[in-house]
Amino acid sequence: MAKGSRSEFDLIGRFFADLGASRADVLLGVGDDCALLEIPADVAMAVSIDTLVAGTHFFHDCDAEGLGHKSLAVGLSDLAAMGAAPAWATLALTLPERDDAWLAAFARGFGDLARTYGMRLVGGDTTRGPLSVTVQVHGLVRAGAAVRRDGARPGDILWVSGTLGDAGLALGLIREGRPVDPALRTRLERPVPRVELGSALRGIATAMIDLSDGLAADLGHILAASGVGAELEFTSLPLSPAVASRIASDGDWSLPLSSGDDYELCFCAPSERSGLIASMAAGLGCALTAVGRIHAEPGLILKGPDGAPMRLSRTGYDHFANNT
Amino acid sequence: MAKGSRSEFDLIGRFFADLGASRADVLLGVGDDCALLEIPADVAMAVSIDTLVAGTHFFHDCDAEGLGHKSLAVGLSDLAAMGAAPAWATLALTLPERDDAWLAAFARGFGDLARTYGMRLVGGDTTRGPLSVTVQVHGLVRAGAAVRRDGARPGDILWVSGTLGDAGLALGLIREGRPVDPALRTRLERPVPRVELGSALRGIATAMIDLSDGLAADLGHILAASGVGAELEFTSLPLSPAVASRIASDGDWSLPLSSGDDYELCFCAPSERSGLIASMAAGLGCALTAVGRIHAEPGLILKGPDGAPMRLSRTGYDHFANNT
Repeated sequence: MAKGSRSEFDLIGRFFADLGASRADVLLGVGDDCALLEIPADVAMAVSIDTLVAGTHFFHDCDAEGLGHKSLAVGLSDLAAMGAAPAWATLALTLPERDDAWLAAFARGFGDLARTYGMRLVGGDTTRGPLSVTVQVHGLVRAGAAVRRDGARPGDILWVSGTLGDAGLALGLIREGRPVDPALRTRLERPVPRVELGSALRGIATAMIDLSDGLAADLGHILAASGVGAELEFTSLPLSPAVASRIASDGDWSLPLSSGDDYELCFCAPSERSGLIASMAAGLGCALTAVGRIHAEPGLILKGPDGAPMRLSRTGYDHFANNT
Repeated sequence: MAKGSRSEFDLIGRFFADLGASRADVLLGVGDDCALLEIPADVAMAVSIDTLVAGTHFFHDCDAEGLGHKSLAVGLSDLAAMGAAPAWATLALTLPERDDAWLAAFARGFGDLARTYGMRLVGGDTTRGPLSVTVQVHGLVRAGAAVRRDGARPGDILWVSGTLGDAGLALGLIREGRPVDPALRTRLERPVPRVELGSALRGIATAMIDLSDGLAADLGHILAASGVGAELEFTSLPLSPAVASRIASDGDWSLPLSSGDDYELCFCAPSERSGLIASMAAGLGCALTAVGRIHAEPGLILKGPDGAPMRLSRTGYDHFANNT
């Protein structure tokens, strides 16, 4: 079909014309057939594209500023997981109708986060249709220094940043129509990508991934790519008081293991680096917790307190177990 | 909302794992947090992102192979308009449900076109929701050699490639439920991006744009960016027999001027280059037609046969006239 509503939607470009930090390496930004970007010699470009769809990844009536933030945070988290420095973003926004207040709020959330990480929006497309947001992020990293998923080695210690399961708990409470503590809700709606941590771990972490689908599933990707297994200690998992209290009441460990959207980093590092890693946490403003160990035999062993069986209600873990 | 259906949709990645040409500059492709791409020194990267939405840009029941082709062709056309050489693509696909036959056909259409232009699919995201396709293309061009929209100069000759209005005519016939000649339908559903032409025009064209929204609107972008005006000769517009016959019957010139989706190139070049440009057409396999001239005074003058007034039913042109 022809782009019948293109002219109206071109005007929407106004909201995104100067979003984010200014960068000298943007030779040509929004407003031509392509953006033109200058890349330094000896540096590789890391790219990741992600779509958030209304009704699948967020509620139709969600806060537009939060959605602007989160749609970029998801990509920044991928750059963090490679140890790449954020550089540019592109945005493809599909909207059922033009709503200037919504657009201004979305642009504010997106632009504030972009500026925080020195990132520039360099291109985009705005179309009419069911609400969805696709963002591609572009980062820079020395090719040999990028942290991939396939470098985990037997004996490596397994680490996670922050706390696990908060976004999943917030989502569950919202779905049940129950009150949600604002700080917990922020963990779902305005995740903080661990960009500084990802960069600091270049040369230290042997493998890294960001936790978008839950620890069990995402750790599974590291194990599969690296051809190794792991042993995970339930009692070591870093939990917020809210998640710890929920587990204490229902005994279900799915939140920290199988709920998504935490955007923390999971990484492996040789055990002799443990002291260094532990000492990094304070400067980075996020907890770093050793939660297990990599071993040669494929598979994931779950170690609970006193050998008690662990209950997991979510299918995420089962899916992982079937595939490793 | 959490990505509850992520595991099923991860499997879809199988269809896109090795799509397109293999390239030595892809350090890491589909399957990590980011793709890692190597960019040569002294070359800039051109990027463009476009979304096609079911019900807005294509029919819900459209041919999946054609959609795979077109979703990449739209981006290739943007690279062509900068004179950039295609390199990599990323794909964000949103689907209401998993349909393996549909996915295989889509991947075939996308992959065949990618291989034609030596392009590799390096990353993607597959999500559940209303059908839409977002593709980002990445091309390479020496920074100073990229052809932008802002270089048109008074006295330049205005050129277009191919024929205009075919996609719009095909769309109109389909909407009216009337039969469509297969060759005409191909112009709508499988546009051929003018990649070779775009590259050949580096150093020759002073300004260039691809025709996605119709000649009047897209030429308007060149005129606005370059701070010039133009005179367009209706009788020079290159028309297929089908479009020429339609205009002869209803006297409406909207098809070649205001209908979109042709993905031909519109460019400006100094008049002393006209012989060279005319001689290029045969080797490139597409017509190149001089249709007007750039002048210093802003605005677009439409010259018809014998001064007869030209009828334009579409709003696309009015929009342009209001904005130039």
